[in-house]
Amino acid sequence: MIKAGIIGATGYAGGELVRLLLGHPEAEIKWYGSKSYIDQRYADVYRNMFRIVEDVCREDNIEALSKEVDVVFTATPQGLCASLVNEEVLSRVKVIDLSADFRIKDVNVYEKWYGITHPCPGYIEEAVYGLCEINRDAVKGARLLANPGCYPTCSILSIYPLAKEGMIDTSTLIIDAKSGTSGAGRGAKVDNLYCEVNENIKAYGVASHRHTPEIEEQLSYAAGEPVLLNFTPHLVPMNRGILVTAYASLKREVTWEDVKAIYDRYYKEEQFVRVLDKGVCPQTKWVEGSNYVDVGFQIDARTRRVIMMGAMDNLVKGAAGQAVQNMNLMSGLPENMGLNLVPMFP
Amino acid sequence: MIKAGIIGATGYAGGELVRLLLGHPEAEIKWYGSKSYIDQRYADVYRNMFRIVEDVCREDNIEALSKEVDVVFTATPQGLCASLVNEEVLSRVKVIDLSADFRIKDVNVYEKWYGITHPCPGYIEEAVYGLCEINRDAVKGARLLANPGCYPTCSILSIYPLAKEGMIDTSTLIIDAKSGTSGAGRGAKVDNLYCEVNENIKAYGVASHRHTPEIEEQLSYAAGEPVLLNFTPHLVPMNRGILVTAYASLKREVTWEDVKAIYDRYYKEEQFVRVLDKGVCPQTKWVEGSNYVDVGFQIDARTRRVIMMGAMDNLVKGAAGQAVQNMNLMSGLPENMGLNLVPMFP
Amino acid sequence: MIKAGIIGATGYAGGELVRLLLGHPEAEIKWYGSKSYIDQRYADVYRNMFRIVEDVCREDNIEALSKEVDVVFTATPQGLCASLVNEEVLSRVKVIDLSADFRIKDVNVYEKWYGITHPCPGYIEEAVYGLCEINRDAVKGARLLANPGCYPTCSILSIYPLAKEGMIDTSTLIIDAKSGTSGAGRGAKVDNLYCEVNENIKAYGVASHRHTPEIEEQLSYAAGEPVLLNFTPHLVPMNRGILVTAYASLKREVTWEDVKAIYDRYYKEEQFVRVLDKGVCPQTKWVEGSNYVDVGFQIDARTRRVIMMGAMDNLVKGAAGQAVQNMNLMSGLPENMGLNLVPMFP
Amino acid sequence: MIKAGIIGATGYAGGELVRLLLGHPEAEIKWYGSKSYIDQRYADVYRNMFRIVEDVCREDNIEALSKEVDVVFTATPQGLCASLVNEEVLSRVKVIDLSADFRIKDVNVYEKWYGITHPCPGYIEEAVYGLCEINRDAVKGARLLANPGCYPTCSILSIYPLAKEGMIDTSTLIIDAKSGTSGAGRGAKVDNLYCEVNENIKAYGVASHRHTPEIEEQLSYAAGEPVLLNFTPHLVPMNRGILVTAYASLKREVTWEDVKAIYDRYYKEEQFVRVLDKGVCPQTKWVEGSNYVDVGFQIDARTRRVIMMGAMDNLVKGAAGQAVQNMNLMSGLPENMGLNLVPMFP
Repeated sequence: MIKAGIIGATGYAGGELVRLLLGHPEAEIKWYGSKSYIDQRYADVYRNMFRIVEDVCREDNIEALSKEVDVVFTATPQGLCASLVNEEVLSRVKVIDLSADFRIKDVNVYEKWYGITHPCPGYIEEAVYGLCEINRDAVKGARLLANPGCYPTCSILSIYPLAKEGMIDTSTLIIDAKSGTSGAGRGAKVDNLYCEVNENIKAYGVASHRHTPEIEEQLSYAAGEPVLLNFTPHLVPMNRGILVTAYASLKREVTWEDVKAIYDRYYKEEQFVRVLDKGVCPQTKWVEGSNYVDVGFQIDARTRRVIMMGAMDNLVKGAAGQAVQNMNLMSGLPENMGLNLVPMFP
Repeated sequence: MIKAGIIGATGYAGGELVRLLLGHPEAEIKWYGSKSYIDQRYADVYRNMFRIVEDVCREDNIEALSKEVDVVFTATPQGLCASLVNEEVLSRVKVIDLSADFRIKDVNVYEKWYGITHPCPGYIEEAVYGLCEINRDAVKGARLLANPGCYPTCSILSIYPLAKEGMIDTSTLIIDAKSGTSGAGRGAKVDNLYCEVNENIKAYGVASHRHTPEIEEQLSYAAGEPVLLNFTPHLVPMNRGILVTAYASLKREVTWEDVKAIYDRYYKEEQFVRVLDKGVCPQTKWVEGSNYVDVGFQIDARTRRVIMMGAMDNLVKGAAGQAVQNMNLMSGLPENMGLNLVPMFP
Repeated sequence: MIKAGIIGATGYAGGELVRLLLGHPEAEIKWYGSKSYIDQRYADVYRNMFRIVEDVCREDNIEALSKEVDVVFTATPQGLCASLVNEEVLSRVKVIDLSADFRIKDVNVYEKWYGITHPCPGYIEEAVYGLCEINRDAVKGARLLANPGCYPTCSILSIYPLAKEGMIDTSTLIIDAKSGTSGAGRGAKVDNLYCEVNENIKAYGVASHRHTPEIEEQLSYAAGEPVLLNFTPHLVPMNRGILVTAYASLKREVTWEDVKAIYDRYYKEEQFVRVLDKGVCPQTKWVEGSNYVDVGFQIDARTRRVIMMGAMDNLVKGAAGQAVQNMNLMSGLPENMGLNLVPMFP
Repeated sequence: MIKAGIIGATGYAGGELVRLLLGHPEAEIKWYGSKSYIDQRYADVYRNMFRIVEDVCREDNIEALSKEVDVVFTATPQGLCASLVNEEVLSRVKVIDLSADFRIKDVNVYEKWYGITHPCPGYIEEAVYGLCEINRDAVKGARLLANPGCYPTCSILSIYPLAKEGMIDTSTLIIDAKSGTSGAGRGAKVDNLYCEVNENIKAYGVASHRHTPEIEEQLSYAAGEPVLLNFTPHLVPMNRGILVTAYASLKREVTWEDVKAIYDRYYKEEQFVRVLDKGVCPQTKWVEGSNYVDVGFQIDARTRRVIMMGAMDNLVKGAAGQAVQNMNLMSGLPENMGLNLVPMFP
């Protein structure tokens, strides 16, 4: 039985981690960390957990925590995880960081986009980028794992095979993404009030969103060349779900079947990436509550572009589900343990 | 391993049954019945099931079906199940009927409220009303089970202890209920279009909704006297969830703690009924995707009334989850098998 | 041309006042008051007003304001308006208070339910309760007007004719109300975040909501006897709209037509109250953006109760629209000036 | 007073035309045409019109209609308007066609994308494309007007100035659009049910949507060269609103201010196009219920692209509002008559 501690258990991603770990046959949660709700019953913060979780929230004390558990999840704002890790902690526990602190290898890029000084650049090199479908072997041996961002997970998995195989001109890549509102977190801000989000759609962070360099870095590895792209996120009036619509020019003429064969080469054996049939576009509702990414694409012969689409639950495959998938790999458990969640519809 | 067949697998309740049975360790679905999608892949009807269910929809042939399975679920419009059952079928399989055909003991009441002639009144007496928390023993021995309606489940469980203990004047009972739109089914009607339901709320079936006599019958058993009440359902712009707000005059002066003690007497050992703490009102979101009913109440000393509230997922405890709970009891399995679902929030 | 000032112009009700007054042919807004956004452009707070309103928000200075305008609207939290009015102010301008400060005649009742000491009880008697359809004549002569609450407006208008005519036993009155989220205001609170409200419904303020005594007082006047009732509001995932479902025992046997005749007697000439046809239930969407209240009812012969229903836009007839209607009456303008708004559907 | 007739008054665009014309001081509706609701009261089809519209729906008889009115609006499926117009009709009335029949000058392109034979190609040349901000003079003299599509209106107005001024490489143009559900019409289809749309987002018509050639044609005129582009619409869980996010490579290095100056050159005097301030992205909620298009943009120096954004109410500026704007121009009335609608927020 893996003992798990969660720093930041009272955010939406933290809450989803709790939901998933409660259903995991080989894990138990030993520490519900929180900054804002210390000493309050966890079930009073998330009443869905009434009579399921009896624990009280505890402060984010990595020192004490690392002595009680095997794995620590940090579902916290940028900078916090990096300020906590050190050799002593890493010698005791595996750390799975859901923040961006260890995702970007070039600390200058991190500091430029995030606008903060990295508190602990020494561990960046060691950290493994935990996109299991691409980095599976490295993940298995990691003790410090950078859990990918929500938009990057969906974007990279949608584009990766064609970038890797040199099918697309990566200089033409444009990613137009749409996210449900849980991605904005549980902080009390006017912009996230019901009446401001409902019956509304907007772009935000245009040409400046922090997930851009993370996507670029991973696709650069795939393409074997530096990738610069446009990434535009949009806020959609729904709780969960990310949809990515990505555009790129094809390097040569291909049929739908050619491209499908490439996707299949990469994802055929992957349980959590479903390449859809011809003519089917992904919908976020079809993956809600599950760890799936649904990927589909369309070729436009007129413009010689391919439109790549991906749909995912931002709190599961985009955060907590992927973190559990990484925990499984890092712990020698079956990768899908606790993750055989059937999407909920409607 | 229990072999299950579903007649009406392509409605919303049928789809939820599929979701729950796929996660059930001792059940497997052998027959995906449908009237409208015969010979189509089930995963083409519900694409959340892509790469999870490979089966094709089959016609609603009870004869053939009853030879292949142990349990038949009928998630179909009124009148269909009753037209299918007979001694031969019941000698082979257990039937769990999600329609109203066998819920009401007085066939005249059924025919009056449903406006159809009952095709098979002979089995009404044998049928067991499957509200497990109240009829557990009878359910265990049933071969024909009437799965309760969604509104009745939430209404009865919210009111039952106080009716049974004679705390309330049942002649003053008023039930104001609110439901998400999945309760209206997947039929293509203008009234259920997104633009007609969204940003809107309305009452419907006022003083005439068919769930009224079902609630009255069960509460009459509890109270030991005939109960007539007002039941008013409302359509709420959300997918899932039923909230019941019920009002009744108290027969004598009581404290919140007195009433809590009564609820606890009935529900303390019940896994799926959670009696909330003082001052907490149930919310449908806290039970979404799970088999829980959250019950809370408030006493108004000024008017000497008690306001009883219940929240539930109409597709789970209000339909498919309760059906699985009944299947478990009827099959000698642990009652909660496959139903330890943590509510999804947000 | 009436010069108007708004104290609290940056809340949702204040914003709606701005929308309505901009379309009013005989009014112009001279003062956009705000506590939180002083010196900011109003159109930066509400970007729908971009290139429509050029003004900057000003502090809530009644002294200065009262010298610049003819009418002051206060769309502010309880207690503020009462702390501002005095003889000097009232000698200069008419005050239309959208808060509860002057709605309740018995200061003890106000202080008990609102939990604050009334800052200025001396003006309670003078203040006119501005439910135009009922108090039209008094409104015309008012200089201090208490604009009714949203729930009370919809509740009272739905019930008033039957209470007034002695058709119902007012001791049996139960009001179950449902409101969109704009009623909760624009304050940044976790409970009002998109993800907390969406896909959710709950009761709140059960047996303790502050609109209860306001409804009771007005219906007591109508019935000619003290009325105590239950009022339960619910939060619905939509921006605008209030639906009231009210229940009461009928004092004698009546037909639908009898009751309709009574409603017609009171509302036939009223532009803003529409009594619906037989069998039609009100829906909030049918009145969105307009000053209408749609009223319908159903008789339950089995229980001898009448179910009275009303639907309204909480920000229009429930706040800003009614305030403009009152301004028109107080200023000798046609009552419907600027209020001939056709409901927006869908 | 202009007498207006509406063919297809019971669709969502038709209903919005009714709402706008009822508020127009110089127009009156003489004919509520419908295919599905003949002889029914219009207010029974759209109950928001109760006690506002007393008329009964009439059949779509252009012959009779054209003798009673001055202007005919056709808010009908493709092919219908084209089958109705002829010299006799056009000699009597002005026709404003909200369908696509006369929008595309090349009949082959129309027939290829719409998959039908054009019933009346002879009038294509005469028809004026009614995007007032661009074709104002031609509109004034038109007797047959092709009212632009919803997506094209928002797309073209967002891109037009930069295409016209040769700022962007039109071969790189990509338009990613998002629409509320009213754009899908009021037909009863499973795909448009509340539970299928709510909590969901998807792309549709990828590389094949019929609005593509319309956008391409108009931008070709602007650019002075043939434009081929990608257009991808998405269905968003909201009633109203279209958001366009368009991407193109800049031909030369420019500042935000340079580009703003270009937009201002075209739109400074336009009442219904609002070019937003620096750093502000358009939101559909800020234009809801109004005839505005809000346009904003961002320059990405890293990728040398400009991201152009536009937001609009699809039923107003994208359909009925623009039709009224055209009617005003064609009738010699002030262009904004009846269209000074303040956006409704929230």
